[in-house]
Amino acid sequence: MFKFIKKLSLLTVGLSLWFIMPAAAETTVSAEVGFILNTFLFLVCGFLVMFMAAGFAMLEAGSVTSKSVSVICAKNIGLFSIAGIMFWLFGYNLAYGIPEGGYIGKFIPWSDASAVDTGYSDGSDWYFQMVFCATTVSIVSGTLAERIKLWPFFLFAAILSGIIYPIVMGWQWGGGWLATAGFSDFAGSTLVHSTGGAAALAGAILLGPRLGRFGSKGEAKALKPYAASSIPLVTVGIFILWLGWFGFNGGSQLAMGTADDAIAVSTIFMNTFLAGAGGVMAAAFVTRLGFGKTDVIQMLNGCIGGLVAITAEPLMPSPIAAILIGAVGGVIVVFGTKLLFSLKIDDVVGAVPAHLFAGIWGTLAVPITNPDTNFGAQLLGVVSINAFVFIVSLIVWAIMKNTIGIRLSKEGELKGTDVTETGVIAYAIRD
Amino acid sequence: MFKFIKKLSLLTVGLSLWFIMPAAAETTVSAEVGFILNTFLFLVCGFLVMFMAAGFAMLEAGSVTSKSVSVICAKNIGLFSIAGIMFWLFGYNLAYGIPEGGYIGKFIPWSDASAVDTGYSDGSDWYFQMVFCATTVSIVSGTLAERIKLWPFFLFAAILSGIIYPIVMGWQWGGGWLATAGFSDFAGSTLVHSTGGAAALAGAILLGPRLGRFGSKGEAKALKPYAASSIPLVTVGIFILWLGWFGFNGGSQLAMGTADDAIAVSTIFMNTFLAGAGGVMAAAFVTRLGFGKTDVIQMLNGCIGGLVAITAEPLMPSPIAAILIGAVGGVIVVFGTKLLFSLKIDDVVGAVPAHLFAGIWGTLAVPITNPDTNFGAQLLGVVSINAFVFIVSLIVWAIMKNTIGIRLSKEGELKGTDVTETGVIAYAIRD
Amino acid sequence: MFKFIKKLSLLTVGLSLWFIMPAAAETTVSAEVGFILNTFLFLVCGFLVMFMAAGFAMLEAGSVTSKSVSVICAKNIGLFSIAGIMFWLFGYNLAYGIPEGGYIGKFIPWSDASAVDTGYSDGSDWYFQMVFCATTVSIVSGTLAERIKLWPFFLFAAILSGIIYPIVMGWQWGGGWLATAGFSDFAGSTLVHSTGGAAALAGAILLGPRLGRFGSKGEAKALKPYAASSIPLVTVGIFILWLGWFGFNGGSQLAMGTADDAIAVSTIFMNTFLAGAGGVMAAAFVTRLGFGKTDVIQMLNGCIGGLVAITAEPLMPSPIAAILIGAVGGVIVVFGTKLLFSLKIDDVVGAVPAHLFAGIWGTLAVPITNPDTNFGAQLLGVVSINAFVFIVSLIVWAIMKNTIGIRLSKEGELKGTDVTETGVIAYAIRD
Repeated sequence: MFKFIKKLSLLTVGLSLWFIMPAAAETTVSAEVGFILNTFLFLVCGFLVMFMAAGFAMLEAGSVTSKSVSVICAKNIGLFSIAGIMFWLFGYNLAYGIPEGGYIGKFIPWSDASAVDTGYSDGSDWYFQMVFCATTVSIVSGTLAERIKLWPFFLFAAILSGIIYPIVMGWQWGGGWLATAGFSDFAGSTLVHSTGGAAALAGAILLGPRLGRFGSKGEAKALKPYAASSIPLVTVGIFILWLGWFGFNGGSQLAMGTADDAIAVSTIFMNTFLAGAGGVMAAAFVTRLGFGKTDVIQMLNGCIGGLVAITAEPLMPSPIAAILIGAVGGVIVVFGTKLLFSLKIDDVVGAVPAHLFAGIWGTLAVPITNPDTNFGAQLLGVVSINAFVFIVSLIVWAIMKNTIGIRLSKEGELKGTDVTETGVIAYAIRD
Repeated sequence: MFKFIKKLSLLTVGLSLWFIMPAAAETTVSAEVGFILNTFLFLVCGFLVMFMAAGFAMLEAGSVTSKSVSVICAKNIGLFSIAGIMFWLFGYNLAYGIPEGGYIGKFIPWSDASAVDTGYSDGSDWYFQMVFCATTVSIVSGTLAERIKLWPFFLFAAILSGIIYPIVMGWQWGGGWLATAGFSDFAGSTLVHSTGGAAALAGAILLGPRLGRFGSKGEAKALKPYAASSIPLVTVGIFILWLGWFGFNGGSQLAMGTADDAIAVSTIFMNTFLAGAGGVMAAAFVTRLGFGKTDVIQMLNGCIGGLVAITAEPLMPSPIAAILIGAVGGVIVVFGTKLLFSLKIDDVVGAVPAHLFAGIWGTLAVPITNPDTNFGAQLLGVVSINAFVFIVSLIVWAIMKNTIGIRLSKEGELKGTDVTETGVIAYAIRD
Repeated sequence: MFKFIKKLSLLTVGLSLWFIMPAAAETTVSAEVGFILNTFLFLVCGFLVMFMAAGFAMLEAGSVTSKSVSVICAKNIGLFSIAGIMFWLFGYNLAYGIPEGGYIGKFIPWSDASAVDTGYSDGSDWYFQMVFCATTVSIVSGTLAERIKLWPFFLFAAILSGIIYPIVMGWQWGGGWLATAGFSDFAGSTLVHSTGGAAALAGAILLGPRLGRFGSKGEAKALKPYAASSIPLVTVGIFILWLGWFGFNGGSQLAMGTADDAIAVSTIFMNTFLAGAGGVMAAAFVTRLGFGKTDVIQMLNGCIGGLVAITAEPLMPSPIAAILIGAVGGVIVVFGTKLLFSLKIDDVVGAVPAHLFAGIWGTLAVPITNPDTNFGAQLLGVVSINAFVFIVSLIVWAIMKNTIGIRLSKEGELKGTDVTETGVIAYAIRD
């Protein structure tokens, strides 16, 4: 508890270091201990990211109107299940089976290749990467809420998690052409967040807005406003996401087997916290000063914007840089939400501003703090991944729209997705 | 972030392995480091399982009607407290103080016997085993909701956590007669989940259904339907349980001190995830194809069914086997729920199908993937534990019913448990 | 899974211990492995404590009336952000830059000084200490709900987290005058919890009660009762706090690099659990026997009381002592709540009884189980810290009251903070 105890123990540790390992050139961690610690990091960070699925579910359930809550819950538990199965069946080896500098890997299931000399357990790596894949799909879910059909959404979730995401993941983290080109995206501002946001944007455009969302007369009136069903659920969702983000970014160090790795993971935790904080307070100031009231929804979504922004480079920034990078992310969320509204694109939870727009910002900002990167390569990565994901998603959504259909009937939408699709009322509160 | 960086580091690690430990026969982890890592695993997995108490609380609070929510919250925080105290006072040594091949241990409190050569801290083992015990009691709580009296429930919780569960736990994990007979239950499909489910079933039979639950006329009509108060709370409960299950199954490896253990824990994480996913999607398909609508409640409970099913053997199955074992668990939940309904047994949250029925399936399925087990021993374990728990619970419930009483007055039940027992309204939402 | 497997592995470990390290005098953990494990403990325990912010948010959101929920969410995400930024900017070095035996440190930002011989990563220590600081501020938020203005609260949050808390933190954990005087507060019953409670009490006195809270006529009638908006949200908040407390107390061991540390952390986990359980059941018994109904809110808050009480010394007590220390904490919460009510001090969530009163009890009780402490030094710490925090807070609140104002207009309060301050309705539930 006492700082001076710390100093004492430093002395002891220092002495033991001196006597036990006088010539310890580099690391004094055995390969097996390193293997265990690396694996432990993946598992701990992996379960934190896994829990982000709950965060997205709560964020979305709280953000939609009370007649679309049960289906959003079904979507979130379903997409997580689908994403995991697809990532085992195809995804992992599409990404990691890619030839160096190449474009696509192999359509074969994951299989275990662990041994002490692989540095960490393959299963723990699968688990960690899988929850990233699931996160990408979670992002899509909220944007399209209240009017998309459930099973077509599940089909898209399978394609996104099994094919689209693993391809772009392989370009960079599988050592494909973007990695060769010098692109840098530490934990996925672009690979995960913009990918999810771009796929969501494509869907929102093809699906169209909720009935009466941007209208002003007749039936439209009766439907407005589209009030969020529960702000505390949105709030707990954001806190869960913030918690999960320590795993998301911290685990992306991919190692805990040396003191240097431990220091790096700690720095990442700090910066991840500070960027989220910057996003929250920037959104609070902007809405209070710009629009009169302090908008709690923008503060919460601003947190996501800040976290997405720092994800491309959570290790190199100083604390003040992390706060500022996050703050810009928060501001982008506020104005990005207004932009989409003015374009009459209906993004129910604000996922496109928070994940796509703030992801672009964060990725382009990497060279500010990381001298080993360059703006050209960052721009190349941002444009190529977002274009690829947006166009392929648009094609997939368009094919589905013209075959099985993706939108509920007008009658079904007016009744609400819960009555129409799952037959379960979300809130049955009786006084 | 790059897979090829992984390859590079493999090389480094491999080289260091070669040079530093040329003759490393087996493990290169010192006993003390192993002790720390094993203890760390127990603590991390333990707090994940501890958090399952919150998952059960939310699952149950969301599943009951809005006039029985406060009491279900009181039950869940109370039973957890009671279970922990009883497991310290009696439980641990009833289970672990058992003679080899025996039937029951000693009625003495836990005490610490840690030293480096015990492999892990005794306190961390107590903590980990205690949260398993609490989980068993949590399972009972939901089934009996909305009509049981609070304090008789607490009394049963004390008996279940202090005596019944520790006895069956000792039969297997304490090295008692079932372990000697060759029974295998890795993390407790039968020991924990069926035990909870069987105790709940006994209570539900003696307690009878909620007023009007299966009726069709008069007052019964007025009470129907028994709508779940909040689907998002059920959903967050399930996600918390899923998260906790990584600790539940992963920690049951009981060790993290070698690379082999780390690989095993990773495999368990994967299979635990995939079995839950299989359960979710199986329930989704079955309800959509079989009954028209995709039932979100069955998807959520199907997840539990899948997780319970894999718990008896989360290490040996291949990924595809894990998905299938979980999927069968999910299907069992759907049809088990219908079975109980047709038998007019009122299980408010579907805990009996998810924990008892899926637990039986999972335990009997162990020999499919684990060649060191046999169906006969599995059947012996399933029958003996479930029969013991069911009969003893039935006797305890019957004695309580005929002495202190276990059911609320008709008037009290109509008012709702919240008004009758705690005097606190659960939701006070004003527009 | 089998205890006898444990025995087998003990043998193996024992043998390996014998052969590999025959003369291992003290620790067999290398300095670098110790560094990694210590850091890992800080990060894991740190994210648990970080998540307590979500617990406070839910506890408070569920406890206020439904027209003040959105603002309480804004407060909780905002204060967490502010506290983190302030603790980086001033707080850390105000506390840790203090001269030995001194009173105050330096107004400079945190900077990293990690190296293997510092024992653990500085960043991980910052992260862990920062979430403690944020917890202190969270405690204040609930007490003042429903009538305080948002931005003056944020300003106080900045002062408390940036200056007041770091000063008292430095007195003890920075090696300042209280540490020199022999005061002992392992994880902060007084430093964190009483500090938060005393600052809240000062605010509650200057702010006054909610309109009609203690009245009995006219408009007051119409406002009563001040019903909690959602008991399940309070419940999940308490479970999250209980979970986080394992990090709070366990991480305060500050080390995981030796078997002795691992045993200590395990003991702390046990005692932390048992004290919470004692608090829950004490509150249940007292309210049931004393007042007729089992008050779920007091059970939940009793848990906090028990946890706060054990926080000053979670390592030395035996299990039964931990239960009793916690139980007294729970009783204090029940009667402390009544005391405040009779004094017409309006503490919306009962934070003053749970954090201030139970914190005093826990700190004064340390010498009962820890022979290296004495009652005089404990009393000195309790009085000096609480007096300092209360008086300084009172001054700060008073200055704010007489300049920018701290209380909403009567009209704004009647409309509810949500309409007045953030313009976002918290629950929009439509049947």
